[in-house]
Amino acid sequence: MKKFVCLTVLLFSGAVLMAQELMSPDGKFRMQFSLDVNGAPNYRLDYKGKAVIKPSKLGIELKDKNSFLNGFSIKNSESNPFDETWQPVWGEWKNIRNQYNEWAVTLHQSSGDRDLIIRFRLFNDGLGFRYEFPAQKNLLHFVIKEERTQFAMTGDHTAYWISGDYDTQEYDYTTSKLSEIKGKYKEARSSNASQTAIAETAVQTSLMMKTAEGIYINLHEAALIDYSCMHLNLDEKNLVFESWLTPDPKGDKGTLQASCTSPWRTIIVSDDARDILASNMTINLNEPNKIKDVSWIKPVKYVGVWWEMITGKSTWAYTDGVPFGTEGTAAVKDVPSIKLGQTDFTKLKPNGKHGANTAHVKELIDFASIHGFDGVLVEGWNEGWEDWFGYHKDLVFDFVTPYPDFDVVGIREYAKSKGVKMIMHHETSGSVRNYERHLDTAFKFMKANNYDAVKTGYVGDIVPLGNYHYNQWMVNHYQYVIEKAAQYKIMVNAHEAIRPTGIYRTWPNMIGNESARGTEFQAFGGSKPNHVTLLPFTRLIGGPMDFTPGIFEMDISKINPNNNSHVNSTLANQLALYVTMYSPLQMAADLPENYNRFLDAFQFIKDVAVDWDDSKYLEAEPGDFITVARKAKGSNNWFVGNVTGVVGGRVSTIDFDFLDSDKFYVATIYSDAKTAHYKTNPQAYEIKKVLVSKKSKLKQWAAEGGGYAISIMEVDKANTKGLKKL
Amino acid sequence: MKKFVCLTVLLFSGAVLMAQELMSPDGKFRMQFSLDVNGAPNYRLDYKGKAVIKPSKLGIELKDKNSFLNGFSIKNSESNPFDETWQPVWGEWKNIRNQYNEWAVTLHQSSGDRDLIIRFRLFNDGLGFRYEFPAQKNLLHFVIKEERTQFAMTGDHTAYWISGDYDTQEYDYTTSKLSEIKGKYKEARSSNASQTAIAETAVQTSLMMKTAEGIYINLHEAALIDYSCMHLNLDEKNLVFESWLTPDPKGDKGTLQASCTSPWRTIIVSDDARDILASNMTINLNEPNKIKDVSWIKPVKYVGVWWEMITGKSTWAYTDGVPFGTEGTAAVKDVPSIKLGQTDFTKLKPNGKHGANTAHVKELIDFASIHGFDGVLVEGWNEGWEDWFGYHKDLVFDFVTPYPDFDVVGIREYAKSKGVKMIMHHETSGSVRNYERHLDTAFKFMKANNYDAVKTGYVGDIVPLGNYHYNQWMVNHYQYVIEKAAQYKIMVNAHEAIRPTGIYRTWPNMIGNESARGTEFQAFGGSKPNHVTLLPFTRLIGGPMDFTPGIFEMDISKINPNNNSHVNSTLANQLALYVTMYSPLQMAADLPENYNRFLDAFQFIKDVAVDWDDSKYLEAEPGDFITVARKAKGSNNWFVGNVTGVVGGRVSTIDFDFLDSDKFYVATIYSDAKTAHYKTNPQAYEIKKVLVSKKSKLKQWAAEGGGYAISIMEVDKANTKGLKKL
Repeated sequence: MKKFVCLTVLLFSGAVLMAQELMSPDGKFRMQFSLDVNGAPNYRLDYKGKAVIKPSKLGIELKDKNSFLNGFSIKNSESNPFDETWQPVWGEWKNIRNQYNEWAVTLHQSSGDRDLIIRFRLFNDGLGFRYEFPAQKNLLHFVIKEERTQFAMTGDHTAYWISGDYDTQEYDYTTSKLSEIKGKYKEARSSNASQTAIAETAVQTSLMMKTAEGIYINLHEAALIDYSCMHLNLDEKNLVFESWLTPDPKGDKGTLQASCTSPWRTIIVSDDARDILASNMTINLNEPNKIKDVSWIKPVKYVGVWWEMITGKSTWAYTDGVPFGTEGTAAVKDVPSIKLGQTDFTKLKPNGKHGANTAHVKELIDFASIHGFDGVLVEGWNEGWEDWFGYHKDLVFDFVTPYPDFDVVGIREYAKSKGVKMIMHHETSGSVRNYERHLDTAFKFMKANNYDAVKTGYVGDIVPLGNYHYNQWMVNHYQYVIEKAAQYKIMVNAHEAIRPTGIYRTWPNMIGNESARGTEFQAFGGSKPNHVTLLPFTRLIGGPMDFTPGIFEMDISKINPNNNSHVNSTLANQLALYVTMYSPLQMAADLPENYNRFLDAFQFIKDVAVDWDDSKYLEAEPGDFITVARKAKGSNNWFVGNVTGVVGGRVSTIDFDFLDSDKFYVATIYSDAKTAHYKTNPQAYEIKKVLVSKKSKLKQWAAEGGGYAISIMEVDKANTKGLKKL
Repeated sequence: MKKFVCLTVLLFSGAVLMAQELMSPDGKFRMQFSLDVNGAPNYRLDYKGKAVIKPSKLGIELKDKNSFLNGFSIKNSESNPFDETWQPVWGEWKNIRNQYNEWAVTLHQSSGDRDLIIRFRLFNDGLGFRYEFPAQKNLLHFVIKEERTQFAMTGDHTAYWISGDYDTQEYDYTTSKLSEIKGKYKEARSSNASQTAIAETAVQTSLMMKTAEGIYINLHEAALIDYSCMHLNLDEKNLVFESWLTPDPKGDKGTLQASCTSPWRTIIVSDDARDILASNMTINLNEPNKIKDVSWIKPVKYVGVWWEMITGKSTWAYTDGVPFGTEGTAAVKDVPSIKLGQTDFTKLKPNGKHGANTAHVKELIDFASIHGFDGVLVEGWNEGWEDWFGYHKDLVFDFVTPYPDFDVVGIREYAKSKGVKMIMHHETSGSVRNYERHLDTAFKFMKANNYDAVKTGYVGDIVPLGNYHYNQWMVNHYQYVIEKAAQYKIMVNAHEAIRPTGIYRTWPNMIGNESARGTEFQAFGGSKPNHVTLLPFTRLIGGPMDFTPGIFEMDISKINPNNNSHVNSTLANQLALYVTMYSPLQMAADLPENYNRFLDAFQFIKDVAVDWDDSKYLEAEPGDFITVARKAKGSNNWFVGNVTGVVGGRVSTIDFDFLDSDKFYVATIYSDAKTAHYKTNPQAYEIKKVLVSKKSKLKQWAAEGGGYAISIMEVDKANTKGLKKL
């Protein structure tokens, strides 16, 4: 990392001006900061000469202390340009430019004789700012009652939102005017294993919006460390969002010790939706990598024992012990109460449907080995799944004791012999104390058995009750696991955890997160067909998602006759997701038998990279379509993905001008067939192989819930024979 | 352990009798069990033909399920005698007899088609009973809304009580009629570092009472495992106590999974107060020892770096960083915000008053070595004490990083060379997640540095807030620490933890507990002079207390001119405490310089044993006096202690008939001088050495807040010359 700027520019000094302003490096953004007549801090943000954030208040309400809301004067004001280019351990780009003008305003509050710093960073793609609390004699320890950061909208924008919740983000997105959010509250919410509503006007971040003038605005946060997660609550009358933090069991919003900071509050803005997707502001606002040796951190493409349980074909549990919801039924009669360390599973009757059995896992290892996958995930390998959910059990899992039919050592050796890595699964069931108690032992067990990645899970209410998935206590827990895992050189993929805020820059062993409605919901009744055209604008702003794409069989009843769910996606759309849903961790989630039925299409999943030197967002409109081209790490091959959510489908038009002019490329285009439709004909796809060059253009129709995927492989000229040009 | 009884006696079978009864082995107790017209279970208890517990309801109120309150029929009823004698690892007796008649009543509740077992054990000293929840198809997981166990008193008894509280038992005892409890609520409460009131009519267990007829009744619980602590709430009108459990942050009282049980509810009764003190019912109701190798568990007599901080002479903290309550004062100006891992303590200015510095600790080691103490406790050795309390910090201590002036290795080697064991201190400040995160590392650090005992502390509110010191979550934490410590062969002395319920039978590495108002309060304004005549009837019913006696200088201003507290006790009383306050862990708490001023009296502390083969309670009346004689483990020496709380003092009269008739004994009597008084003349003591035999009798005056201590050493006849008979 190099710093290109050392110059310090003092824009203002000590003056109590009513408004001061800062420009972005490219001059497109202008932000103003001012104190009103009560000494309350305000900011506004203009883009290309027009307001995108109207004057909005800044402040923090404290408990049992004078709040940081008003009575301020400007004590110091300092501005500096900053420009660096850095290399992520993995990512969408080989190099990431981090350029902004920074402005730190030191405010003095005479009533409490205290200082508060508000630090702004104005990038070419938007604004980040945070509160900084210097250690000072009148402020060392404090409790936040509520953060009072406002985002005043300039109109009744279209928003792509999910309902505010302290415990889950696993909702379909609703597209509506801001003024319609409250009215759509009920329809926007669906049931989840753990959920805690906030207010009918509360939404989650990252929140995507579009103005009537065609300006795209994204609100989120960056570097959420030792602080509670921010929601946004809408004042419908004035169209002003205000921060709403996640409480502790007493209702407080955070316990802090100066010196410390809030996370960054981010406003990404452009009149081109592609710029929102291409923004690196969130990751740039995080601290540089703290892991010195990163040789063990590797992007992973994997298969696993997972979709078969999600669809209900097989079970996590080894027996029909006490599955959720069957208490009181005949099924329970013959089995004991399941207690780890007391229940002898070898004396229970296997249910014959246990997914993670040795023979089956070896089949998956074979499949991974044959098709070149890096890893195999195994869920349901450990004792306790008969009775894991819904009862707030403390000792729900021990993370080291396999079921009788899961041969840890045999599988380890078999996987080694096939050159495949095993991926561990740690479901906590929300019992986080229990998880922390076992963490060292579990990580040692992993390393001893050749697992170097873990998928963690937090399904259900957090124990002790009163805590939430997104409060400071839990934010600190997830961070603890990431850092502890790094000590053991273990990569983490956390499900149901706090949604990411770019922390993977600092801790690149955090290779995945769920924290949104993933593919599993396609087996639970389905997701909206345009869901995947929204996730990159919302959830993925903070970091990659373990979305688990690659479903080829959309009729779930063919896997489990008792499950009539339908996957609202075409097969071509599923292929495109490996490119549109950027992640260093990509699963081929469907069953091997389904891939074996469509090996020609499966070839794309085998070919596609999971780490990139470059990314070009070619087309984008939230809710409608996304088209992106990415250059594979250390290679001249490119992969293109398009997902489409438009009713009736859409013709995508792209240039291949991202290709090198002096190279030859063979493109394999996996697209929806003309008759394809996510619901009625999802498996209708076409594959064609053509030559492409820098000058090629493509017009490609994609169905609703459909899309296309293209692999573009550099070839020698000799290998171009017999292939048509595009 | 042997079982003397195998015979199974079926007293009743399947009948729905309106009242069934059970007798104690000696016939003094009779208990009745019945179902009322609503099928609600009731019990009553008679002692020597008179009711001590009037008909009282039994039941559990459940959340979101049919409660276990009524609608029961008797499905089965089975009674068995039981008699065993077992040897504790340490204790008041070499052998403990555990004899009772057991009665298990299986109740069936047709509305929910569920069974509930109530198991009674009727001893010769009282009744224990508990609820048992068999695993059954209609009851596997359940949440307790409230336990509804009643104890209906037969009159307006005198009670010796402390106010109900979810977080502390550190109150002086109030003696009043039951009907006066509510009126004395305010005066009964004093401030504490963490306290949560329950109700004006709520009191804590063990609760001691005395009837107008002179019957002593003690209510408590035994084997509190994975359940929340029980308080008692008084229905003043009917003089009925009802159980009141400690809630989780949501207000629920416990999350259970069948099969499981409640703790035992205990009612110890006698017309002789000495029998209450001598009762082993509580420990007998616990499970046998679970630690196979107990060779490392050893009673400990120790000195330490402690009283000097309690009195304010020296500090736990190495610097004057941010002590509690000074935020905002000038003292904070020059020091940074204290953060472990960030603050470099070597760059802070020492305050010159840090107790746990290497030179001073070595002085303590020398003192311990010279006077034959087993161990030296060191508090304030580790970084963080500048800012440890009141702010609910997460990472408050790391338990392994010493202050710059505490040489861990040097002290370890010095202590080894002197044959002295070091005792570690782990203050958690209520941040229990942080403690659990560091527990393995901390215990390994202890073992590596030759510490095999730890004093834990839980000062302040429990984090995460909403939990309490006494709820199920925390009960499980304390238990986790005990069991984890046992793995490392570490003995535990837990302060501010849940009050004991006899668990030391099962986990004898639990050698101490505070959980009551200890000697420290004598430096915080003083305790009542009869406090120590009550603790053995109340707090000590559940197990030993680390009371830290042995204060010789009662005028605290002589230690710290800024502290005007007075120790409400005579010096002789302090000596007696080593015998009256049974504990395998006894501190000589005062400063070495104070012991050096009174070396003749100090001799008793040096001589007194901390483990016993026999104990004889010679005199007892709660609030007034206790006299006990104990025979030292593996020796023929006896030690006698008397503490007196009677205004104006009292003449104690004891026989020495516990001595062997064929042996010779020299008794050294340490008693209050005639002019002694706890307030005006506490250091006035007399020592005389006399011959005693089985036929000796002693009449000995003791002052209010006073007492006497006697060492009785077996000698050869040759060594009796020149000594007078008593």
